[in-house]
Amino acid sequence: MVQAKAWILARHFDGFPKDSDFQLKEEELSEPKDGEVLLEAVFLSVDPYMRPFSRVRMKEGDVMIGTQVAKVIQSKNPAFPLGSHVVSRSGWRSHSLSDGSDLIPVMSEWPKDLPLSLALGTVGMPGLTALYGIEEVLGLQAGETLLVNAAAGAVGSVVGQIAKIKGCKVVGSAGSEGKVAFLKELGFDQVFNYKTVTSLEETLRSASPEGYDCFFENVGGTFSTVAIQQMKDFGRIAVCGSISTYNDAKPQTGPYPQMTMIMKQLKMEGFMQSRWADKHQESLKRLMRWVKEGKLQWREHVTKGFANMPAAFMGMLKGDNTGKAIVAV
Amino acid sequence: MVQAKAWILARHFDGFPKDSDFQLKEEELSEPKDGEVLLEAVFLSVDPYMRPFSRVRMKEGDVMIGTQVAKVIQSKNPAFPLGSHVVSRSGWRSHSLSDGSDLIPVMSEWPKDLPLSLALGTVGMPGLTALYGIEEVLGLQAGETLLVNAAAGAVGSVVGQIAKIKGCKVVGSAGSEGKVAFLKELGFDQVFNYKTVTSLEETLRSASPEGYDCFFENVGGTFSTVAIQQMKDFGRIAVCGSISTYNDAKPQTGPYPQMTMIMKQLKMEGFMQSRWADKHQESLKRLMRWVKEGKLQWREHVTKGFANMPAAFMGMLKGDNTGKAIVAV
Repeated sequence: MVQAKAWILARHFDGFPKDSDFQLKEEELSEPKDGEVLLEAVFLSVDPYMRPFSRVRMKEGDVMIGTQVAKVIQSKNPAFPLGSHVVSRSGWRSHSLSDGSDLIPVMSEWPKDLPLSLALGTVGMPGLTALYGIEEVLGLQAGETLLVNAAAGAVGSVVGQIAKIKGCKVVGSAGSEGKVAFLKELGFDQVFNYKTVTSLEETLRSASPEGYDCFFENVGGTFSTVAIQQMKDFGRIAVCGSISTYNDAKPQTGPYPQMTMIMKQLKMEGFMQSRWADKHQESLKRLMRWVKEGKLQWREHVTKGFANMPAAFMGMLKGDNTGKAIVAV
Repeated sequence: MVQAKAWILARHFDGFPKDSDFQLKEEELSEPKDGEVLLEAVFLSVDPYMRPFSRVRMKEGDVMIGTQVAKVIQSKNPAFPLGSHVVSRSGWRSHSLSDGSDLIPVMSEWPKDLPLSLALGTVGMPGLTALYGIEEVLGLQAGETLLVNAAAGAVGSVVGQIAKIKGCKVVGSAGSEGKVAFLKELGFDQVFNYKTVTSLEETLRSASPEGYDCFFENVGGTFSTVAIQQMKDFGRIAVCGSISTYNDAKPQTGPYPQMTMIMKQLKMEGFMQSRWADKHQESLKRLMRWVKEGKLQWREHVTKGFANMPAAFMGMLKGDNTGKAIVAV
């Protein structure tokens, strides 16, 4: 028997999440049955999507959804041997039982010098999101100009680097001088701090006077309104996130985009990486290869302690993280 | 020499157009030079696009843009013989000179029992817009459910009928009981008057409880916000028009669509028929064939007199027309 901890959504978020919306629950887990494994969380992911999904995929009293890298500490399933690591959709739990159906073994050829937490970031869901957004949604071509916002985040930082790999000009927006410096290190062509520019419109125009072929959208809200105006004719927009609107108690409003979309004949598509699950394995290998070749650099913002999951989540929503926000147990 | 009349954009529209925004100008046209023809307008088109295009393609003092069916009344160009008819982008002019480069001869096999004004509607630009929106943008498939608003208009009425030809379920929205009756005659599966329904959301849900695969958007504004919520996962939206926002002195605002586009993985694309100009000739033949076979029915709202161009235009913007709004000289 194992004493397990889990973070519960005690109350649906109303506006920005607060401590009292979460509750730590303890429970005893029984021994795994035949075919089952007992998992212990090593790294847990906090991601922007958890905020909007809390409303549509969770009810009050549910364990917070989420992915983790876990170690198999008891095994009655030969596919997941004792001591091996898996990526699991166990939610915000310190320990969990699984029949293996929702588990993905961490890549067997995982390099010794890379932390397993990368399986929650650049070589995990955020990396896949960046890759599919670029290849499947935008169809980004060499020589094109791409705009990405929340560019220093887990997805955005991979987006910009893949676009560079593909021979594109990359313009990135982020929310601090530190993030701007990080993005310059990554090789972004133009970077700016959206919080300190005088005019977002002027900044976007001067970063690419001829406009943007593609826009990888992570922010939404007023940024989207301004960015859409700067697209080239036939521009494509991959809508991955809308973090500036996730914590609205009352939905923000802005000018309708339809007229601009007609005049410029723009295409805008919302997407989630799960759509291309059949390509995940091959895609993760490509992401890992780019990491090993040094073409995909990464940074993590690590919060220590399972007890700090809510704080890590709220910090990430505020933009505390450069790179992927991770909780290390 | 011919005394020609032309309607000028005297002042840029501020909100809904008014009489004083237009001015009638007279001028004398000289004889056509070698290679030129002298045209006399027979039917002129008034279309929604003229309102937003007035801002981006015209300056004060310019002749209003637009297309007409004209008769060649003098010809020094053998490609356009005396007495023949052409579709011309002459704008709001009673007479004009052309070197032929912007003229399209009216289809030689034009049936005697069909008015030439159809070349400005169902077998013209609005028909092409409907066809390309369905085939090139939406990729509408048999068995799918399509929503179209401004469904009794020049484009919308063709959209719904082509969707029926393709074996789809069609739900249409229009703004009067007369239009609703017309759309039922055309074979639309579900039709409603958006001005009198208690709840647009409930009406859309009950018309297609399983949601919509495709949405042909002519209206924009609050309709778009409600309709997007009713799309199926992976739904496609062709943005053709946004007539409910064209006359805003100050842009209307609404909730940002990004979050819904992500959750449902929607695709939204703005378009203009001119993108597929290389297919126009073949497409017009298909439209004409459907008309002859009775599969594409049509109705026109004809205003008599070149003097009434502004009134016809403003009436169309108010929704006076069922089917295509035409001015007969």
